[in-house]
Amino acid sequence: MKIYDWPTGPYPARVRIALAEKNLQSQVQFVTVDLWKGEHKTPEFLAKNYSGTLPVLELDDGTLLAECTAITEYLDALDDAPLLTGRTAREKGMIHMMSKRAELELLDAVSVYFHHATPGLGPDVELYQNPEWGLRQRDKAVRGMRYFDGILRKQPFVAGEFFSMADITVIGGLIFAGLVTLPVPDECDALQAWYARMQERPSVKNRVTMSTPAPASA
Amino acid sequence: MKIYDWPTGPYPARVRIALAEKNLQSQVQFVTVDLWKGEHKTPEFLAKNYSGTLPVLELDDGTLLAECTAITEYLDALDDAPLLTGRTAREKGMIHMMSKRAELELLDAVSVYFHHATPGLGPDVELYQNPEWGLRQRDKAVRGMRYFDGILRKQPFVAGEFFSMADITVIGGLIFAGLVTLPVPDECDALQAWYARMQERPSVKNRVTMSTPAPASA
Ligand SMILES: N[C@@H](CCC(=O)N[C@@H](CS)C(=O)NCC(=O)O)C(=O)O
Ligand SMILES: N[C@@H](CCC(=O)N[C@@H](CS)C(=O)NCC(=O)O)C(=O)O
Repeated sequence: MKIYDWPTGPYPARVRIALAEKNLQSQVQFVTVDLWKGEHKTPEFLAKNYSGTLPVLELDDGTLLAECTAITEYLDALDDAPLLTGRTAREKGMIHMMSKRAELELLDAVSVYFHHATPGLGPDVELYQNPEWGLRQRDKAVRGMRYFDGILRKQPFVAGEFFSMADITVIGGLIFAGLVTLPVPDECDALQAWYARMQERPSVKNRVTMSTPAPASA
Repeated sequence: MKIYDWPTGPYPARVRIALAEKNLQSQVQFVTVDLWKGEHKTPEFLAKNYSGTLPVLELDDGTLLAECTAITEYLDALDDAPLLTGRTAREKGMIHMMSKRAELELLDAVSVYFHHATPGLGPDVELYQNPEWGLRQRDKAVRGMRYFDGILRKQPFVAGEFFSMADITVIGGLIFAGLVTLPVPDECDALQAWYARMQERPSVKNRVTMSTPAPASA
């Protein structure tokens, strides 16, 4: 398998963490797509992912899977031991809800802030910006942090009693928030304590060094 | 099970269709939440779904599941015969990718257009609007229609050879597009032919009359 990837990107991080949790690192080759050069907006890359975002997983038969949630579903179903996406109906529903909520209320909101109310990937890549919308999304993301703080006061992981895709999505959100210097509010100590615990997981700690990326032409 | 619902809403339609495909209609009670009165933005409803959107599924033990994708995952996993979300890793990945893409590029884009560049749910509910962003999302949705038209020229269903959650999400997008009078471009005849076929499915055809909604106090 190949992953079109950006080693320090918050969304690619989600797949890197999932790979490590599933112990599948050795089965993938990373292909770097340079976001800062806008390589994800070339016709060649858009043919791989219509939405023009990373990561994209390419299977050995050429099948292309974009979207972190979809890639995580795929990786988690490869063996018969789902670890990240739930076993029972209730677990699946809860994990998908919390992961989607982490996108809507945190990760995607930080991303829109970055692309619309900061220089983002620079003027050659950010061809349209809507700063007012970007700032609204920044405020939404901070509210989202408070929401997840409240959740983590009541339970050890984002979707309940065990680590799941939903934790990974919140981790992606806080990685992105760190990159754009949007700090977790001081009073969110449950979220901060959870994040400190998460950063001790090898899958999270070692994600950037996971593999030497191959050049894009590989 | 209870579903907090709006009978003609495009997102609630996704769950109504999933329920009918799984033959679970008789097991749910519909509770109408009046979007036009902003009942989904009351503190009481926000406690059920932080994001303040419909539908929400409430299980008999009080568990609350929001987000159409999460609810569909839950419903599809109740028996041991997944019908809408895939059986193999590849099917799961493909269905989740195409369903997410249908949200990003079509359904959610139409929704943002509705809430930001049209009167939406009216001035008492739409407390902030960003018309420029809304119009951009409208144009994105039309491009999305062309994208799905291209997909449906090559295969009978959105995620491949069989009906799935991904078809349901595109149906939701076209239902919403119909409500805001955003027509499918004439030249998208594969998308139109597919939509005509979809509307013959009982799950799609009978979704609004599926059940007499109980009053919100029920
Ligand atoms: N919905 C996508 C979002 C992925 C995404 O936004 N990835 C970032 C990389 S961290 C990206 O490609 N950004 C470039 C851009 O939006 O121009 C997913 O979940 O995979
Ligand atoms: N991401 C949500 C979106 C649901 C959604 O937007 N539902 C509409 C009803 S058709 C809604 O509640 N809109 C009210 C609003 O956004 O104010 C899902 O997939 O369930």
